[in-house]
Amino acid sequence: MVDVIEIQTHTQSLYEITGQLQSLVHSSGIEQGLCSLLIQHTSASLLVQENADPSAQHDLERWFNRLVPEHDPIYTHTIEGPDDMPSHVKSALTTTTLSIPVMNGKLALGTWQGVFLWEHRHRGSRRRVVVHIGR
Amino acid sequence: MVDVIEIQTHTQSLYEITGQLQSLVHSSGIEQGLCSLLIQHTSASLLVQENADPSAQHDLERWFNRLVPEHDPIYTHTIEGPDDMPSHVKSALTTTTLSIPVMNGKLALGTWQGVFLWEHRHRGSRRRVVVHIGR
Amino acid sequence: MVDVIEIQTHTQSLYEITGQLQSLVHSSGIEQGLCSLLIQHTSASLLVQENADPSAQHDLERWFNRLVPEHDPIYTHTIEGPDDMPSHVKSALTTTTLSIPVMNGKLALGTWQGVFLWEHRHRGSRRRVVVHIGR
Repeated sequence: MVDVIEIQTHTQSLYEITGQLQSLVHSSGIEQGLCSLLIQHTSASLLVQENADPSAQHDLERWFNRLVPEHDPIYTHTIEGPDDMPSHVKSALTTTTLSIPVMNGKLALGTWQGVFLWEHRHRGSRRRVVVHIGR
Repeated sequence: MVDVIEIQTHTQSLYEITGQLQSLVHSSGIEQGLCSLLIQHTSASLLVQENADPSAQHDLERWFNRLVPEHDPIYTHTIEGPDDMPSHVKSALTTTTLSIPVMNGKLALGTWQGVFLWEHRHRGSRRRVVVHIGR
Repeated sequence: MVDVIEIQTHTQSLYEITGQLQSLVHSSGIEQGLCSLLIQHTSASLLVQENADPSAQHDLERWFNRLVPEHDPIYTHTIEGPDDMPSHVKSALTTTTLSIPVMNGKLALGTWQGVFLWEHRHRGSRRRVVVHIGR
């Protein structure tokens, strides 16, 4: 089963998509299997992170923004805006694909884990994540 | 087939889990397939790295500890200790899931590759890795 | 189906392998499924990135080379040359495995996405990528 989910982002931030994924897993009827994701963009990425305390997510964003600042003179690829090349770097530092086992009809995440789409552009966009669920 | 392996860690370090994974692959009886892993924590991560020379692993740890120091004033999420937020950052920089093809009944790793659980907390913990093996 | 593709690299650079992967997916006859990759080396890695404008790839390389310089006094694992330990770090910061859904008989990549082998050594090498394609 391959499906596409769309997430409208509005600004640079982490957007939790765990609920949408759990719904897809539920619909698939698969009890034991694997749920694999690909985000179809190179200026946003995927991340499994703590979803309990929002301060952890804020700190993550601040840390990455300091490591990968805008207006870095090293960049030559600047025609798409000052947040474009930093987005590609952050995408390379995190990941574009994830594979999450399914147990008892649910994503086998840890107690404090959520799946996030990390939007790296300021203006946001309509983002597409391809989801494969198989046995 | 979905299974869970537990690894007791004792301190910040890389713990090789290749042997345990090969045993699971062997038990599954699968000759050609895919072995996918998820670590159910956000302060430890997964890594495929050189397992021949321990100095490569030490240098990796030193490099990451310098890039992601404790007591960084950027952090606001500090209630779980000074090594908590650096652990989340290191987890984001490495990965939480891996997918390793199986060939001839074995993980199709390169000659010098091993699969590691990377514990980012000082005190260690009982860590859970979910393993899916399919065709 | 598990296959191995070999890519001859010549220098530190990103090598696009999307075409070779699409051919394998086509040969498999699988319409909806998952294509998973493992690079069998720890001094080269995998990346999904923009394949439209080569300047984005150049900037990525420059950024990573500045973050992970050679001749860093922190390294003790130096017997394989000054570009060896930086290669392991870059491999840890990017990834060794990818899982890409297949839709309508093709890798379900975004419009501007390509799959790259990232060679981190100066001299290059014959690199092996294991490819699993399943339903």
